Amino acid sequence: MRYLAVAIAALLATSSAQAAPATRIPDKALATAAQLREQALADNTGWKVVESLTTEVGPRLAGSEADARAVAWAKAKFEQLGFDKVWTEPVTFPKWERRGEKAEVIGPHAQPLKVTALGGSPGGTVEGEVVRFADLAALKAAPEGSLKGKIAFVDYQMVKARDGKDYGNGGAIRSRAPSEAIRKGAVGFVMRSAGTDSHRVPHTGITRFDDGLAPVPAAALSVPDANQLARLVERGPTRIRLSLDCGWDGTATSYNVIGEITGREKPKEVVVIGGHLDSWDLGTGAIDDGAGVGITMAAGHLIGQLKQAPKRTIRVVAFANEEQGLYGGKAYAEAHGRTADDLKLHQIGAESDFGAGRIYAFNTGSPAPEGSREATRQIAEALAPLGIEYAPDKGGPGPDIGPIAAKGGAWAWLAQDGTDYFDLHHTADDTLDKIDPKALAQNVAAYAVFAYLAAEADGGFGSEAKPTVPPSE
Amino acid sequence: MRYLAVAIAALLATSSAQAAPATRIPDKALATAAQLREQALADNTGWKVVESLTTEVGPRLAGSEADARAVAWAKAKFEQLGFDKVWTEPVTFPKWERRGEKAEVIGPHAQPLKVTALGGSPGGTVEGEVVRFADLAALKAAPEGSLKGKIAFVDYQMVKARDGKDYGNGGAIRSRAPSEAIRKGAVGFVMRSAGTDSHRVPHTGITRFDDGLAPVPAAALSVPDANQLARLVERGPTRIRLSLDCGWDGTATSYNVIGEITGREKPKEVVVIGGHLDSWDLGTGAIDDGAGVGITMAAGHLIGQLKQAPKRTIRVVAFANEEQGLYGGKAYAEAHGRTADDLKLHQIGAESDFGAGRIYAFNTGSPAPEGSREATRQIAEALAPLGIEYAPDKGGPGPDIGPIAAKGGAWAWLAQDGTDYFDLHHTADDTLDKIDPKALAQNVAAYAVFAYLAAEADGGFGSEAKPTVPPSE
Repeated sequence: MRYLAVAIAALLATSSAQAAPATRIPDKALATAAQLREQALADNTGWKVVESLTTEVGPRLAGSEADARAVAWAKAKFEQLGFDKVWTEPVTFPKWERRGEKAEVIGPHAQPLKVTALGGSPGGTVEGEVVRFADLAALKAAPEGSLKGKIAFVDYQMVKARDGKDYGNGGAIRSRAPSEAIRKGAVGFVMRSAGTDSHRVPHTGITRFDDGLAPVPAAALSVPDANQLARLVERGPTRIRLSLDCGWDGTATSYNVIGEITGREKPKEVVVIGGHLDSWDLGTGAIDDGAGVGITMAAGHLIGQLKQAPKRTIRVVAFANEEQGLYGGKAYAEAHGRTADDLKLHQIGAESDFGAGRIYAFNTGSPAPEGSREATRQIAEALAPLGIEYAPDKGGPGPDIGPIAAKGGAWAWLAQDGTDYFDLHHTADDTLDKIDPKALAQNVAAYAVFAYLAAEADGGFGSEAKPTVPPSE
Repeated sequence: MRYLAVAIAALLATSSAQAAPATRIPDKALATAAQLREQALADNTGWKVVESLTTEVGPRLAGSEADARAVAWAKAKFEQLGFDKVWTEPVTFPKWERRGEKAEVIGPHAQPLKVTALGGSPGGTVEGEVVRFADLAALKAAPEGSLKGKIAFVDYQMVKARDGKDYGNGGAIRSRAPSEAIRKGAVGFVMRSAGTDSHRVPHTGITRFDDGLAPVPAAALSVPDANQLARLVERGPTRIRLSLDCGWDGTATSYNVIGEITGREKPKEVVVIGGHLDSWDLGTGAIDDGAGVGITMAAGHLIGQLKQAPKRTIRVVAFANEEQGLYGGKAYAEAHGRTADDLKLHQIGAESDFGAGRIYAFNTGSPAPEGSREATRQIAEALAPLGIEYAPDKGGPGPDIGPIAAKGGAWAWLAQDGTDYFDLHHTADDTLDKIDPKALAQNVAAYAVFAYLAAEADGGFGSEAKPTVPPSE
């Protein structure tokens, strides 16, 4: 029965392949990839790159002086690592700055609280009674005007998961709850950090305010501080004072920094891998996303060291300002994915931006995936010795690959174990010591194998221009 | 052979007992203690006390407004818990304040560093090249004048241990290295925190400056920041700027807060247990030392709930200002241990001040311990079901019992598992969520059993006035 089922599946695969010529990876490339995989596992280039970026540049908020240093660092690093072509592409965005932040309980239980402003928050000092909500739905259900003169506190505790799925809830509170609170009359907003740790390190991250609303100071409490505030609110009316010195200040221009290993046969067709170069300002941006930069720079470097260049070009992108709205990814899609002709040159893309945990699953996707399923399976087979399983019909593009994928670009998903990611994400604790060099090397091996094989494939992964989505009514 | 050895030991014990009448615990008291132990394990008074102190008062630096609130809190809590007598005794000390602190690497690798001023540091802003030393010995070995205009950085990494033994090294650096650095010409001092965690939460703690030296700003870097600074120094000359706003400001008076369960037969003879009420200002003083206050208040309370009061008085002390120099313990010893007559009333004392981990060992000590060994063994046997072993010839008095022990007071040692203690000690992370309620209840059970049995003993534990130690030549 089992063999019969396999035979039928094979027949179906063949018939599908006859309808659209199936992409396949040549055996010789698979043999080279196996060597590349072992070599990458024994190599520490990825670690050295993250160590260099997080130590020499440190925190690098988009648009800051340190961000400019990071751009210079990335160019120099690509060159040191022997990339064939290195260049920058400008990315312009509104500039937000954090200068200071403070919060305290006032009254009979006076004490300081550890907070951090959400990115995009205005500055200002507000004081008021705290009204606690268990989650976003509870805040939404509050009567109009019920928060007049008060400070809303959304107290949702994120749950750990390998795929970080509860960030859906935590992230939604961060981006949408401040506007909800303003609509109910609140003069300020605090939330339990979208995090899974138990340290006094609040988690920042971008928020936004709906059009027509006057923004109010919005901040995240560390998890222990949220516990504390919840206990105080349970005892009786509790007032806090929130003082943020931060805000928008004109525009800034940073750069996507790009390095290429030129393809030997189809140099204009590119496999894109990358991470984002900017970080929040609280930590040194090790897991978010020095790791992604290190993993993909090292993967490109190792492919560049092969005796023979791959068939297509490997393009490594250190994206600008991912944190505040995917500005680098959007600029990249605009520059390299605008037309159907652009998309024909986009073989496939993948971003590493979920920490430095081991990769456990792989898949690809595109508007026309039928012809590339066998090649995807072949790549998954080459990744299997790294403990990575093929996960058909799962995953999606990384954040900065999202904009080009939305236009029709094929993407690959190399799923990292994010169990501990939200212990550190967007906090002061995002530092180099949180990266396991062996896990990082596994990531480098996976990216090197994937990028090399995708570049060597006979055929594509289904990139094609998507019809423009008509505006919804 | 085994039985013979036991018989000989018993004979020897008997002969020793004949020389000095041996203290023994009556069987009835042992039976009551067994009930008390089980009751304490099922009781959450200790937890509720720590929750109340850390939530309602929060951080309570000695001499601060919050410290005064803590004193009022402790009096009210003793009363709520049904202690027979509650009073305060004044403790006066120099007052130190922390108002702000900041450090940054300057130059091509500019970035902020997380620091906290050491208690006792003066304020001021200093800037200079960092000179790194692996430990205190390396700093001591530096040539005279070699640190002129520079900032000394002692980079010793404390090692975890159940008994916290490496705090000997970490604490010695904190208290002695600033003076060593000044003698070599340094304008500022930073150290890797005396801690075993990997978070951006620097560890404060008191330092002191030798007479005749002009104090300089002295701070601790978080462990990740120390790693970062060490990497930068390894790359080449590294300058930092350290700005501390803190310092001594006159004197303050706080209070030892004392609650008693009056003894039924010998009310003037006291078993003293306690913790310290003050905390550093960074966390909410949960493990240091809300736990000790909660454990001993709860133990006293549970003994107070017995049908019959113990033979001697149980005295629970919430000591003032332990952190900056054992001021509460010294004042207590001066008030209650000054004369030979005082010491006759001091049955025995123990302080809980090593976190909230489970107790694993027990012992007692005194100037004349011979007669109390059997009673100590009996108490250990009553503690054994809690996973506590008798550790003859080990241990010593807790910090605030130290001063009365130095005068000749008997002490008990209830050794807590401190494996994780230095992850949290003196940091912002010392918060309620770090306490395991079950481990706390085990502590309460142990203190209740020990204090009750020591109060019920037929005989004492060897307190007697020690001859004054002649001043060394």
